[in-house]
Amino acid sequence: MSDENGDQAGLRRFHPDYRWDGVELKVYKEDGRDLFRDVTRQVLFSRADLAGELRYFEVAVGGFTTLERHEHVHAVLILRGRGRALVGDRIVDFETNDLITIPPLTWHQFRAAGDQPMGFLCMVDAVRDKPQLPSPEDVAALRSSAPVDEFLG
Amino acid sequence: MSDENGDQAGLRRFHPDYRWDGVELKVYKEDGRDLFRDVTRQVLFSRADLAGELRYFEVAVGGFTTLERHEHVHAVLILRGRGRALVGDRIVDFETNDLITIPPLTWHQFRAAGDQPMGFLCMVDAVRDKPQLPSPEDVAALRSSAPVDEFLG
Repeated sequence: MSDENGDQAGLRRFHPDYRWDGVELKVYKEDGRDLFRDVTRQVLFSRADLAGELRYFEVAVGGFTTLERHEHVHAVLILRGRGRALVGDRIVDFETNDLITIPPLTWHQFRAAGDQPMGFLCMVDAVRDKPQLPSPEDVAALRSSAPVDEFLG
Repeated sequence: MSDENGDQAGLRRFHPDYRWDGVELKVYKEDGRDLFRDVTRQVLFSRADLAGELRYFEVAVGGFTTLERHEHVHAVLILRGRGRALVGDRIVDFETNDLITIPPLTWHQFRAAGDQPMGFLCMVDAVRDKPQLPSPEDVAALRSSAPVDEFLG
């Protein structure tokens, strides 16, 4: 195991609350802008000798991730629950174990659906650009589509 | 989505037999050397603009992966079932959703346990070295440990 995690045997156990031994839970602090709601992040794999990182994000009932875009690609596998995602100008309904690719510079947001949390694995490059937030003009352009307007709430 | 998968909307659906839309299943052909048994591979994410790849391996009841080592790291999340792994000179018992790291140049093998298939996600660098198989001397050294000898069967 990596120094960061300290388990020489290479095993980190899963717990039923979707926590893992030796993995820190990061809770995103809401700042009043309502950019996201009830999202946590756990970095499952991040090592100097790996070109990718694997993270686990969990969205509580009624929650959603930040609407953003960036050059780097998101490779997503839904680990828990179900939900809806905005990918560019498309809305996709997804279930556990479905795969979702977010291509470069594509606006995206994930929302939990149903009465249980929605959690997903997200593989990214370790070296990557920072997310961009939409301008008011970007939001207006997105909302010009009725389904996207309804999705964004 | 990538050209390889052809889904512009970015969603590839999961099916209960652990297959995904647009993802090819590769069955490893046994060649009489008994290096592995009943293993399939599906490449879930592999794109020119991603530094990592995410694959899904499935091992049938009684099956096992090839005993091998390589410079590149394996970052593993158990998606289905349970089993045992050799990691270096350690044997680890794992359950669904556990994390396992295989460090560089570490002998490893995964075995299914119980009465259902065992499947795992494995993140690797897209650019990586080829696996090395153990020499008879390597196998003898591994088997000098009684637990490893029992594990290898």
